[in-house]
Amino acid sequence: MDFEHSERARQIIPLVERFVRERVKPNERLYDEQLVHSSDFRQWRIPPIMEQLKAEAKSLGLWNFFLPDSDLGPGLDNRDYAPLAEIMGQSLIAPEVFNCNAPDTGNAEVLVRYGSEEQKEKWLEPLLDARIRSGFAMTEPAVASSDATNMQATAEIVGDEVVLNGQKWWTSGAGDPRCKFVIFMGVTDKNAERHQRHSMVLVPLDTPGVKILRMVPIFGQLSEPHGHGEIIFDNVRLPKSAFIAGPGRGFEIAQGRLGPGRIHHCMRTIGAAEVALERLCRRAVGRVAFGKPLANLGGNREIIANCRMAIEQARLYTLKAAWALDKYGVFGALADVCAIKVVAPNVLQMVVDAAIQIHGGEGISDPELNQLMAMARVLRIADGPDEVHRGVVARMEIRKYL
Amino acid sequence: MDFEHSERARQIIPLVERFVRERVKPNERLYDEQLVHSSDFRQWRIPPIMEQLKAEAKSLGLWNFFLPDSDLGPGLDNRDYAPLAEIMGQSLIAPEVFNCNAPDTGNAEVLVRYGSEEQKEKWLEPLLDARIRSGFAMTEPAVASSDATNMQATAEIVGDEVVLNGQKWWTSGAGDPRCKFVIFMGVTDKNAERHQRHSMVLVPLDTPGVKILRMVPIFGQLSEPHGHGEIIFDNVRLPKSAFIAGPGRGFEIAQGRLGPGRIHHCMRTIGAAEVALERLCRRAVGRVAFGKPLANLGGNREIIANCRMAIEQARLYTLKAAWALDKYGVFGALADVCAIKVVAPNVLQMVVDAAIQIHGGEGISDPELNQLMAMARVLRIADGPDEVHRGVVARMEIRKYL
Amino acid sequence: MDFEHSERARQIIPLVERFVRERVKPNERLYDEQLVHSSDFRQWRIPPIMEQLKAEAKSLGLWNFFLPDSDLGPGLDNRDYAPLAEIMGQSLIAPEVFNCNAPDTGNAEVLVRYGSEEQKEKWLEPLLDARIRSGFAMTEPAVASSDATNMQATAEIVGDEVVLNGQKWWTSGAGDPRCKFVIFMGVTDKNAERHQRHSMVLVPLDTPGVKILRMVPIFGQLSEPHGHGEIIFDNVRLPKSAFIAGPGRGFEIAQGRLGPGRIHHCMRTIGAAEVALERLCRRAVGRVAFGKPLANLGGNREIIANCRMAIEQARLYTLKAAWALDKYGVFGALADVCAIKVVAPNVLQMVVDAAIQIHGGEGISDPELNQLMAMARVLRIADGPDEVHRGVVARMEIRKYL
Amino acid sequence: MDFEHSERARQIIPLVERFVRERVKPNERLYDEQLVHSSDFRQWRIPPIMEQLKAEAKSLGLWNFFLPDSDLGPGLDNRDYAPLAEIMGQSLIAPEVFNCNAPDTGNAEVLVRYGSEEQKEKWLEPLLDARIRSGFAMTEPAVASSDATNMQATAEIVGDEVVLNGQKWWTSGAGDPRCKFVIFMGVTDKNAERHQRHSMVLVPLDTPGVKILRMVPIFGQLSEPHGHGEIIFDNVRLPKSAFIAGPGRGFEIAQGRLGPGRIHHCMRTIGAAEVALERLCRRAVGRVAFGKPLANLGGNREIIANCRMAIEQARLYTLKAAWALDKYGVFGALADVCAIKVVAPNVLQMVVDAAIQIHGGEGISDPELNQLMAMARVLRIADGPDEVHRGVVARMEIRKYL
Repeated sequence: MDFEHSERARQIIPLVERFVRERVKPNERLYDEQLVHSSDFRQWRIPPIMEQLKAEAKSLGLWNFFLPDSDLGPGLDNRDYAPLAEIMGQSLIAPEVFNCNAPDTGNAEVLVRYGSEEQKEKWLEPLLDARIRSGFAMTEPAVASSDATNMQATAEIVGDEVVLNGQKWWTSGAGDPRCKFVIFMGVTDKNAERHQRHSMVLVPLDTPGVKILRMVPIFGQLSEPHGHGEIIFDNVRLPKSAFIAGPGRGFEIAQGRLGPGRIHHCMRTIGAAEVALERLCRRAVGRVAFGKPLANLGGNREIIANCRMAIEQARLYTLKAAWALDKYGVFGALADVCAIKVVAPNVLQMVVDAAIQIHGGEGISDPELNQLMAMARVLRIADGPDEVHRGVVARMEIRKYL
Repeated sequence: MDFEHSERARQIIPLVERFVRERVKPNERLYDEQLVHSSDFRQWRIPPIMEQLKAEAKSLGLWNFFLPDSDLGPGLDNRDYAPLAEIMGQSLIAPEVFNCNAPDTGNAEVLVRYGSEEQKEKWLEPLLDARIRSGFAMTEPAVASSDATNMQATAEIVGDEVVLNGQKWWTSGAGDPRCKFVIFMGVTDKNAERHQRHSMVLVPLDTPGVKILRMVPIFGQLSEPHGHGEIIFDNVRLPKSAFIAGPGRGFEIAQGRLGPGRIHHCMRTIGAAEVALERLCRRAVGRVAFGKPLANLGGNREIIANCRMAIEQARLYTLKAAWALDKYGVFGALADVCAIKVVAPNVLQMVVDAAIQIHGGEGISDPELNQLMAMARVLRIADGPDEVHRGVVARMEIRKYL
Repeated sequence: MDFEHSERARQIIPLVERFVRERVKPNERLYDEQLVHSSDFRQWRIPPIMEQLKAEAKSLGLWNFFLPDSDLGPGLDNRDYAPLAEIMGQSLIAPEVFNCNAPDTGNAEVLVRYGSEEQKEKWLEPLLDARIRSGFAMTEPAVASSDATNMQATAEIVGDEVVLNGQKWWTSGAGDPRCKFVIFMGVTDKNAERHQRHSMVLVPLDTPGVKILRMVPIFGQLSEPHGHGEIIFDNVRLPKSAFIAGPGRGFEIAQGRLGPGRIHHCMRTIGAAEVALERLCRRAVGRVAFGKPLANLGGNREIIANCRMAIEQARLYTLKAAWALDKYGVFGALADVCAIKVVAPNVLQMVVDAAIQIHGGEGISDPELNQLMAMARVLRIADGPDEVHRGVVARMEIRKYL
Repeated sequence: MDFEHSERARQIIPLVERFVRERVKPNERLYDEQLVHSSDFRQWRIPPIMEQLKAEAKSLGLWNFFLPDSDLGPGLDNRDYAPLAEIMGQSLIAPEVFNCNAPDTGNAEVLVRYGSEEQKEKWLEPLLDARIRSGFAMTEPAVASSDATNMQATAEIVGDEVVLNGQKWWTSGAGDPRCKFVIFMGVTDKNAERHQRHSMVLVPLDTPGVKILRMVPIFGQLSEPHGHGEIIFDNVRLPKSAFIAGPGRGFEIAQGRLGPGRIHHCMRTIGAAEVALERLCRRAVGRVAFGKPLANLGGNREIIANCRMAIEQARLYTLKAAWALDKYGVFGALADVCAIKVVAPNVLQMVVDAAIQIHGGEGISDPELNQLMAMARVLRIADGPDEVHRGVVARMEIRKYL
């Protein structure tokens, strides 16, 4: 029982902290100014400061922390990566700076574990080098994606080819001008066993039949320059080598992808919650009403204490889930991963809501607080809604008594 | 003890319901399409459908319900207006259609009660006729406006003139191309008694020295075509006849204005909560996952029941506060008005949050649900944050035992 | 829309208030001292002060308010009774003083509506005269009574007799030395339609085969001198005239009984919550820590405001349900009755929990606060658990969209 | 970062688990039967099974785990003791079986650290041997003990003696027939610095002037055979050697005593919460209503998941606080200890409340669930109420930004 980070993590933590504090946070405003806001995502551009920060981070070796594979990165396990991801969560642009942003991280992991040599060379290498970006096309607008067996998109084998049809949305990153491919999930054999029906297919975005309809807004925001794409796959034809790991292995890959991915989200969420609590506290000590700082008025200290207690618990639970993932694998850590996927975003939502409230009129117009609120709200749905994860936690609890 | 609406109200309710159902709701989409979205509020235009709907409503006599004065409107009291406001709350554009939208309603009431004949003729008449719109400039960015004595803006008497200086924000409606005046609140005599220092001044927007800096975003949205203005008043000079009711009466007017105004917000909030609950239920019965409608999965029925119970209670409390306002006046109804100002927006936030959650990815991108969430979040702060109103409720409770 | 009580109610309210304030509350301690505490319920005695207070109340005509029948009492409807029941809820012994205590009230209503002349003469008259007490034997220990169709007890017709078998518990009042009969519910014809299988039977407690096993404790308390009996009915034989309204009508009677009964509980619960809030406030203003009254420390005012807002809403909802019951009957008021049955006890539990907390060590040992906590906790289960009532509310809400 | 228990802990855990499972739990009922229930605590007797179980545990070396001192026990640190205390928390009688029950544990620690050789020999030795029991007399009925500077009891030096006066309550264990001494805290020099005014004094219970008034009930229960004493100290005279560590050191000792003590409570609380969740789940899978096990009805799975997530977080937080206590000492771990003192009892209250609810009528009469509810409710007040601990957490959070 030791709550100290590993020596490896303790070496890297101060480097990342410093880079975020000295290089990333001070450039957030410049990044925003350099952004092209447009309802037409094809106008979007990557702020030059991002490419500059990435180059700096990479040159310092602060790069690809998420990859457990030690040949391609520092080779950290989940529990070592956790505190780094938390620090990155303190800035909405930090994860990309260190090439640790979703969905590229998950896609890279999929290719490391399941990609063919050709896929690795052509797509993984530039992805890890951040020359290109990628998307993940799983969720569909017409059906409840919380139940993956609802999926209607198809990836059918026709001769030497795989033919994709279907409509996807929430393909995050699809609006990024650097986005070159998406990983598509669809039904290959609807008569196969329940978890062997689906396949994952690597689809270059310039393949004929791939039509990006729009970027889906989140609370009215388009999340430029990445976006969340709604995409039609209309008879998209690819050679069978586009399958990842072969037909029928979609579920297996998804499981492996989502475990660490969910943990990463939670880690960043903790960092975001710390930002929100810091904002709350700074307002509480710096703003005066009725002759006192807000911190000395009414229940504000109770709120602060409740936020601190909730964040600390969510952090410990995330770390434990990361540790369990390292030690027991995706299935051994399932209950913990599902649990923290519920806990962390709800904690963030509570903390940000309190931070907004104490900021009054400023709170509802402050871009950072507003983005953190959107982040919390999205994460209670993305990668599986709270309800599904609570269901898994309950099922595993009940099972002990059956 | 009778929970039936008055006969007067029961005559009007079906007319308003029908107009909202048949004319307003079906034109919401057209209204959105006709809107000019621009970060420059000077580009904003009023959708033609709005002027058309207003003309229709007015011709049917469905107009100015909010005014208790029976010479200028139907002369309803608060408890009769309540169910109408609730119906209007079912559409974000409905209040304006019936000329019952804030802040014009509150401004009109101020002018009816406190305005000079000249002010009434020049500003009230076109306001009630909806030929012009107006704003209310009270909140300031630099100080905690929850404590009104913090106010720094000044309305000083210099010779025959009143001279205004200060910076205001959250002047809702200031971006509307039809907005012609704002009511400004500032300190006239800082040495007067605490509640006789402030004055209200009617300021034509084209007065030299009035500079609209920007429209303040709410969760990134500019609320076109009305907006929430941030305005500098830089040595704005007006004749002393611009005072409303004379210098030093600002607090008195504000109290009278905010009582009914807060109730109106709450009434509309109940209507909005009903919309959110309807959306939630329709999704629950219409969407299938794991082979069942969502309504039959997990705790969704508990959520629906909790929403229904919360809305019903908030409605009853609002009605009771309206009744108390009619019967006992602003001060007699103070605890009830403050209480419902806390309860109603929190109920809306809870219901909308649940509606978003059950809609999954659609929930976070759905414009209506997103606007309702913003409405709830704003109303927990606007016209006094929850904390201030809870403080009043507690003070009046404790006072019984001192 | 009128929140004023009826003139009839306004006449009686001050009389009951005064009697509770001047006669009942000051004698609570004496009542406790006169109680016989014993683990053997057969030792229990009625405190003489109770009979004295009853005689006084009866002589003043403050008696049998619950009965809508104007021949047998003042003939109040539910909405007039509501404020009286609330006042009685301020003292745990007050309902009995006015002969308005459960389960005698519900049993009397059953006999008024469904009893034979013989039953009325022999059992109703002394019950309304408070010469005897009664019990209601419905819930069974072995099955989930939230689903009434689970009931296993039987009331079979054998020749000219009805024969009762089964085990019941939570037969409140069965330990009272004055308790002379219980109303028993059991299956008469298990092949009949689902809601025509059960019968109600009036069982004199001295009938052979009726064995009171024990009084069931509530949080370790036996609720002397009334108790909650666990009773075995072992081949209890009665003439068929013991059926109430005839065989197969058990469900029908239960429905009619439970509607007003649940409302009565809720009314009293509001009164109890007011007591708890008063205790909370008195402690908040009277106790000093860190140099300030507790009312000025931390979030205590938020707590007080939240309690006031919750109680006020629960009261309005209860009144509305009572009004709906008068106006639309048991089925027309079903959603409201079920809703308030959830809301009121939960509000009481929240308020009492807060009152206990602010009393510190005194809170967990204070008999009044402890009894109020038990009352709240019991009422979330008695007469149907929260879950069942929420289910009804949800079902009626969803039905609108099917 | 390692969530595995130490090797030392992993050796002992299965031994304690097995003893609790095989010896303690099966004898809980016998213990209850052997208890003497009486309102006169002088009638109380120790159930013989307790002494027998103690002898067994001691002979197996399962004894005095709480003492970090390796000469007097196994010498475990807090993080090793944590999982053992959690297991003991699964039975209300288990802590005493292993001689790990409060307040004897805290008193023993005080004597180990601060006691004179004479005190150790005369009182510590038999305490560690479980031949005697002890109490801790700190809280006073007349003042808010959440603010320790309110304390009114005195321990004045008169000549060679120390003279004690004052009234104490919540002296847990004072009703135990084996209780031979209490540690008394009082003001020695009211003019000294705030934290050097108080002293601790070891008071044999048979000293003249010590009058035990009564055992304070908790929700009506007297907690036999230990009880929570209300004691008057009326001019109790003792030699100055009765001071612990000398006059003026009361606060210092209290701080050192309360840190680990609070953690121990929290550890046991986690174990108790696990018992409640197990009860909840067993009922959920074993009870049928409306044709389904309760686990498949409504929101019961959400409740189970929420309980599991809350317990797991509280456990991790407790373990972290224990680790911090070992590593950074009482002051370094202050925020964590205060935080978990809030979190753990609230989690237990939530879980037990849910367990009671799902048990319906059985829930409110079940002794185990009722005792767990009382335990939760007491612990939100004992050793400092939630409010005080939240205040500490908030103060330390805010301090970062001052």
